[in-house]
Amino acid sequence: MSDEIHLYDLKSQHDGLKWAEAGPGVIPAWVADMDLPTAPEVIQALQRRAEGDLGYPAWLLSQQCGPLAEAFAERMATRYGWEADPVHVRSYNDLNQALQVLLHVWTRPGDGVAVHTPAYHPFLDTLAIMERPLHAIQMRPEGESWWFEVPDLSGCRVLLLVNPHNPTGRVFTREELERLAEHAERHDLLVISDEIHADLVYDPYEHIPFATILPDRTVTLTSATKAFNLGGIRCSVAHIGSPEMREALDGQPPFVYGSANLFGVEATVAAWRHGDAWLRETLALLDRNRWAIAERLPPTVGYRVPEATYLAWLDYGRPGMAEVLKQEAKVLLSDGALFGPGGDTHVRLNFATTEPILTEILNRLNRAG
Amino acid sequence: MSDEIHLYDLKSQHDGLKWAEAGPGVIPAWVADMDLPTAPEVIQALQRRAEGDLGYPAWLLSQQCGPLAEAFAERMATRYGWEADPVHVRSYNDLNQALQVLLHVWTRPGDGVAVHTPAYHPFLDTLAIMERPLHAIQMRPEGESWWFEVPDLSGCRVLLLVNPHNPTGRVFTREELERLAEHAERHDLLVISDEIHADLVYDPYEHIPFATILPDRTVTLTSATKAFNLGGIRCSVAHIGSPEMREALDGQPPFVYGSANLFGVEATVAAWRHGDAWLRETLALLDRNRWAIAERLPPTVGYRVPEATYLAWLDYGRPGMAEVLKQEAKVLLSDGALFGPGGDTHVRLNFATTEPILTEILNRLNRAG
Ligand SMILES: Cc1ncc(COP(=O)(O)O)c(C=O)c1O
Ligand SMILES: Cc1ncc(COP(=O)(O)O)c(C=O)c1O
Repeated sequence: MSDEIHLYDLKSQHDGLKWAEAGPGVIPAWVADMDLPTAPEVIQALQRRAEGDLGYPAWLLSQQCGPLAEAFAERMATRYGWEADPVHVRSYNDLNQALQVLLHVWTRPGDGVAVHTPAYHPFLDTLAIMERPLHAIQMRPEGESWWFEVPDLSGCRVLLLVNPHNPTGRVFTREELERLAEHAERHDLLVISDEIHADLVYDPYEHIPFATILPDRTVTLTSATKAFNLGGIRCSVAHIGSPEMREALDGQPPFVYGSANLFGVEATVAAWRHGDAWLRETLALLDRNRWAIAERLPPTVGYRVPEATYLAWLDYGRPGMAEVLKQEAKVLLSDGALFGPGGDTHVRLNFATTEPILTEILNRLNRAG
Repeated sequence: MSDEIHLYDLKSQHDGLKWAEAGPGVIPAWVADMDLPTAPEVIQALQRRAEGDLGYPAWLLSQQCGPLAEAFAERMATRYGWEADPVHVRSYNDLNQALQVLLHVWTRPGDGVAVHTPAYHPFLDTLAIMERPLHAIQMRPEGESWWFEVPDLSGCRVLLLVNPHNPTGRVFTREELERLAEHAERHDLLVISDEIHADLVYDPYEHIPFATILPDRTVTLTSATKAFNLGGIRCSVAHIGSPEMREALDGQPPFVYGSANLFGVEATVAAWRHGDAWLRETLALLDRNRWAIAERLPPTVGYRVPEATYLAWLDYGRPGMAEVLKQEAKVLLSDGALFGPGGDTHVRLNFATTEPILTEILNRLNRAG
């Protein structure tokens, strides 16, 4: 069996959280990192920077972090037809930090936050620890895809939108976003729109930035870390469309939430400006992988082919399967129970891996199933 | 004149804040970055990382940030005989962030903060913007060095100690630190001890970590960014000796202040574990430079040779000299007025540069003086 060799190769290349947590012989398919080499353009930019000036960057005291805000605005314009204003960009270490900062300055314990569930679990942890009650917008399976009804959002101050959606991989349609916008206006909600998976949308789906629908109520969060596999660089972007939120943020001590780091900015700008050839290739691989799963998954397991992301949300029909599959299949998956209401019979499989490894994962799931 | 060549060489190598702000033909000797290449061990570590896994680091969810806390504790033990506990380490982007976080969770507007003046000006800006009144501990020239009396610190909640001291370059003696400790106990102060310049102490002076004197009241702040010239990496360490402060920090949302970045940790650990040969050479250069200034400065300018740091605190006897020297000498210095009480007749000269450039700086200051 050749997969031990593949495994060994991958494990020796990857020393991050994803592989570190896999026990002997276990293939990790959990945390959202790819088992793929970084885009060469990003590596080159980082290596050039390593040889260059590592002192205080020229943009240290500007909120726009030099080229970061501009590269973001360029990308939004060319890929999504959104004319984002670079002046409204702030940077944070990561999206979860940005979320915690925004909730901290905008809301109080007890203020509700509406989120589609199942939900990216670190965000649920944030709501729980910050005592902002979750108002679940339940995603429900329908045919090959998902739908949702918006419940009464009284008591909410924020809609935390994750689009494309993790873990289902849904790309919300204009009609859905407009429906959400109506609720946001009716209940005077701030919309925090996590669009980190936007660059991972499959044909023919289309990403629509929420800020194009409701500019003055929306804070858009994104980074290059998912599409370009850079979770360690700690560099993300918040476009603060809401003038009141800009004012609230400007009232905070100027450095209390940190500042952008040189390598994070360098990697992000290189990815966004020069990484698209790599991204196209990667997306082609991920596209093959999402269909391979549809073909080869045990037939009793529920799976709706995602419209975006490299995450497969698998319904085994009973809880506790992550532990079972770790033991029996030696595949480490994310436990659906972490993702909140509607999650517990599921596991989440990260398919951002090479074809031989995915084949081995599917073989193992079949043998165990 | 060959210095135009040197200038051009340096300017083309350095694209950070320091050189970016220098106008045509102006030599920047202001912001605290060195005009020297990075330690090769640090460059290598960064380049290896650039080629490796850039996903979520294995230590993402541990407060100690993997090797960061351990490398810090090792360094404190071997260089300064302080057995710091790695478990009490937190990381922040930079020292000013750490200060703002600590003041935010520990104090309220109106609470006083004692600081030696003249003072590192970004800290004064922090106190002003956070409305924590400055209680100045005035440094006074005495012979070749400096002394201070501690005023009544009633109304203070914090002693913000900067040791070695910026801008005077004083290394506080054990007697002085013990005197400060008495005041801290008498007034129940938290001591925030910025020891970022500790690795830049000249023979025969010795750095004494304040935490060895008053462990339970002290938060020690440091980073590799000054001694190893890494201002852009945004990675610093806070050792929280005070159990009450640890509790207060643990009560904050876990990511609201950000998290350590991969390249910052990599650079810091490489510098601390493998950078000492580079540091010794650099310190030898800085040592020659601090004496060259003593020999060659215009005789009317007051200068006490610093015991640490690459900063020369020059007394021109009248205010506004930074602007005059920028115009007339084409040397960009820090305006002493920024450093608070006792600063306005001074300029601060950063002498972390090559010998030819320092010679040219001194020539220019002599011609203008
Ligand atoms: C929906 C979503 N948001 C954000 C992130 C990244 O979060 P952070 O930037 O806090 O690491 C991920 C990573 O998987 C994600 O799936
Ligand atoms: C006394 C002192 N503290 C801290 C710093 C660095 O501050 P930060 O880490 O916020 O960039 C410097 C830099 O010159 C300094 O001189």
